[in-house]
Amino acid sequence: MSEATFERLVAHARETALLTSISGLVEWDEQTYLPRAGADYRAEQSAYLAGLVHRRNTAPEVGDWLAELRDSPLAADPASEAGCVIRQLSHRYERQTRLPAELVEAIARTSSQAQHAWVAARKADDFESFRPWLEKTLKLQREQAAAFGFERSPYDALLEEYEPGETAESVGAVLSGLREELAPLVRQIVESGVNAPSDLVCREFAVQQQEAFGKAAAAAIGFDFEAGRLDVTAHPFCGAAGPRDVRLTTRYQANDFGDGFFSILHEAGHGMYEQGLQADWFGLPPGEAISLGIHESQSRMWENLVGRSRGFWTRFFPQLSEAFPAAMAGVDPDAWWFAVNEAKPSLIRTESDEATYNLHIIVRFELERAMIEGDLEPADLPAAWNEAYANTVGVTPPSDANGVLQDVHWSAGLFGYFPTYALGNLYAAQFFDQAEADLGDLEPAFAEGEFATLLGWLRERIHSVGQRLSAADLVQKVTGKPLSHEPLMRRLRAKFGPLYGFG
Amino acid sequence: MSEATFERLVAHARETALLTSISGLVEWDEQTYLPRAGADYRAEQSAYLAGLVHRRNTAPEVGDWLAELRDSPLAADPASEAGCVIRQLSHRYERQTRLPAELVEAIARTSSQAQHAWVAARKADDFESFRPWLEKTLKLQREQAAAFGFERSPYDALLEEYEPGETAESVGAVLSGLREELAPLVRQIVESGVNAPSDLVCREFAVQQQEAFGKAAAAAIGFDFEAGRLDVTAHPFCGAAGPRDVRLTTRYQANDFGDGFFSILHEAGHGMYEQGLQADWFGLPPGEAISLGIHESQSRMWENLVGRSRGFWTRFFPQLSEAFPAAMAGVDPDAWWFAVNEAKPSLIRTESDEATYNLHIIVRFELERAMIEGDLEPADLPAAWNEAYANTVGVTPPSDANGVLQDVHWSAGLFGYFPTYALGNLYAAQFFDQAEADLGDLEPAFAEGEFATLLGWLRERIHSVGQRLSAADLVQKVTGKPLSHEPLMRRLRAKFGPLYGFG
Repeated sequence: MSEATFERLVAHARETALLTSISGLVEWDEQTYLPRAGADYRAEQSAYLAGLVHRRNTAPEVGDWLAELRDSPLAADPASEAGCVIRQLSHRYERQTRLPAELVEAIARTSSQAQHAWVAARKADDFESFRPWLEKTLKLQREQAAAFGFERSPYDALLEEYEPGETAESVGAVLSGLREELAPLVRQIVESGVNAPSDLVCREFAVQQQEAFGKAAAAAIGFDFEAGRLDVTAHPFCGAAGPRDVRLTTRYQANDFGDGFFSILHEAGHGMYEQGLQADWFGLPPGEAISLGIHESQSRMWENLVGRSRGFWTRFFPQLSEAFPAAMAGVDPDAWWFAVNEAKPSLIRTESDEATYNLHIIVRFELERAMIEGDLEPADLPAAWNEAYANTVGVTPPSDANGVLQDVHWSAGLFGYFPTYALGNLYAAQFFDQAEADLGDLEPAFAEGEFATLLGWLRERIHSVGQRLSAADLVQKVTGKPLSHEPLMRRLRAKFGPLYGFG
Repeated sequence: MSEATFERLVAHARETALLTSISGLVEWDEQTYLPRAGADYRAEQSAYLAGLVHRRNTAPEVGDWLAELRDSPLAADPASEAGCVIRQLSHRYERQTRLPAELVEAIARTSSQAQHAWVAARKADDFESFRPWLEKTLKLQREQAAAFGFERSPYDALLEEYEPGETAESVGAVLSGLREELAPLVRQIVESGVNAPSDLVCREFAVQQQEAFGKAAAAAIGFDFEAGRLDVTAHPFCGAAGPRDVRLTTRYQANDFGDGFFSILHEAGHGMYEQGLQADWFGLPPGEAISLGIHESQSRMWENLVGRSRGFWTRFFPQLSEAFPAAMAGVDPDAWWFAVNEAKPSLIRTESDEATYNLHIIVRFELERAMIEGDLEPADLPAAWNEAYANTVGVTPPSDANGVLQDVHWSAGLFGYFPTYALGNLYAAQFFDQAEADLGDLEPAFAEGEFATLLGWLRERIHSVGQRLSAADLVQKVTGKPLSHEPLMRRLRAKFGPLYGFG
């Protein structure tokens, strides 16, 4: 009996996955190739697909099937594929059916309008014009949290969407542990008085060669271009349009090699996770990414722990010099390595470095948590932002455009999303430690162009798991310990101490 | 009452148009950017979308609405927008609901398998391996014709899908009129002993410059790149992913300027028709193309009557010489114009010229009509093909790969499609005659880079009409006469007589 119901559930979910992946393609196209005048109709196409998917996900028959299956033997082992499908789809079904349709529509509509208001406000450096939209968005997010339900904090209900199983408290604990050690490290870097030769990265790097070099590097670390592509966009992202159709995007600036190149490695990290998921469960929980944080751990690992390592540049420096003979003429490999590892407190999160990045996230997490929990009003946000930046990052924004208005997330209604960026960095370092414990030092392999060993380890331990484990259980299973800030801090100290002359 | 029903019908059709246009985007992506390994899942996505669209189009409530509306005052004026919607959607609903689901599935499955068999058979030059698939396809197409129903010939029922309102008899009459005059003209060309300097087009034309030059030319004749794009594919086509999102494709060969360039003009002709349809009726009959033949009339007009005219090259020759200084060094404008107007009987339809093209179509039309009407068996097809080519085109295929196996259409189940290519050429010439009657000689305008007058005329008389008129009524209304082969023959004689020294 329950086998037949399970088959029905899976067949239904596979059809939904067809629509979701079509949606992914449609969004990829919107960010890459859509003609300017096509935007209005594209919005209608996307909204229609989203509605189709939502109606399928909340269809009453799905609820009936899940109710039957939850108590069946198929659900007995939660880490089995069937158990995973039943548990995860039940969780999603319950969450989605708790949201009244009017609230879903109000959030979608407000998000679109608020993002337009945000673009204008940032351009005009005018927080006050954005404030009413932030207030409206915040109100809707608090309503959404109430609809989802929560035990301690409404923030938990929102965070659950992006990092299932984590809470304001659990994330708060790990991030304040990180802050206590990271802030002093960044102060040491600043007080060292040492400056990285960052101008080396800002010479003239022709875009066409950047593309060829970046593609070659992504292929070398293991991204499969038979089952994926690389295109140009304004804000780099990675999307999947099918189990063997993963689309990386980047952007190129002729006078900033790092912006394009590290975006490619970052997105290739996301892309290799997608390519490593179980294809025969595509779009269903056993073949889906666990959480945004785990996804980000893969992008950060390949961007920073691999792509900014000495071993990586031992391998790629000669090829870089060959691809850009003029820009690289006379450049010393050590200087180049320091240049791509500059650490310096700055105003803009997306342009910040491996060392200071998490401080930007901590500021956002604390402010958005306070707003959602009712302890901070939007009217007081700019002052709170500037104070937090001065205290935590060590810089004071000269304007709201370069401060509180810099990120799209809050205008888009994405509360609870920011901390997944920092969690990604922490997961990455802890996984990488374990990989080196299992495989031995990896940098000598990188220096030989050998990346398949690390990728194989990630495939087996992380990618192929899908959602059969939660993020916390995965970390525990793979590394034998709960998540901690210590692996990341050790790596940061080991890299930046010597670079800035105090290690 | 009927107003409310009409609103429901239109809202339903607009949602279907969202899905159809998403399908268009998905197919465009398949032919341009899809990673190789993504093909299997893409086939599932496309089939799922096709199924969704088919279920919507044949939904019983649509039948109920249409039954109510057909006798309402809204349907009274068939050329009104409402009348057009009701008439055309009724026609489609009736046709689609006549097909049993099993037949639709058998056709889709066989088409996919038969196309694979055709690719292999063409490669191996082995008609016999394809014959069973052709027999199966033919049987299904005859079943489809029977399900649709017909008065005189089963071919009529199939042709209706591509060129509504036309029949085997009507098309046969116009094509045999054409053949009687065209075959002697081609013989005159051959017997003239004159050869075009076609090698000029086959010098080295760098692909990147071809793309820039082709885009500039498409923009100059009126294709709006704010509402469209141009990308690379294997077999050029034009698709619409939205009312202001029209996608041209072409291919480039470094040693064949004509293949890429005239494909761009051809697809831009299709694209300008799409861009000229009423955007507020996008995907509904008042905003849809009338027929494949009328669509082809627009592509052929811009490719041949504009793009291969003397006036066009008076304008573009200097720009061409500038874009390709090496290839064009010392080339005489008259020689270039002759080179892009070479006429010569050849084996392959898609590579044939303005003069001989329609002879290729006449062969296919007569053979496929005979097969559908039961007068020709697939086993006898290769001999019949070779005989027809010798008699009609004046060449004898040395192999089936270059003969009966050259086109994909029959393997794909597209019987009744070929004649629309020839009808397009006939419509184009007749429309163009009328445009010159209304606007005066157009070549002097082309020589000045003035294409907007012609485009404006097409927009008003043809594009904006959508399906409010049938193709036959449109031709009658625009030109005051029924379709005839005479305008095309007059143009061909006027161009090729002087070029080949007998005019």
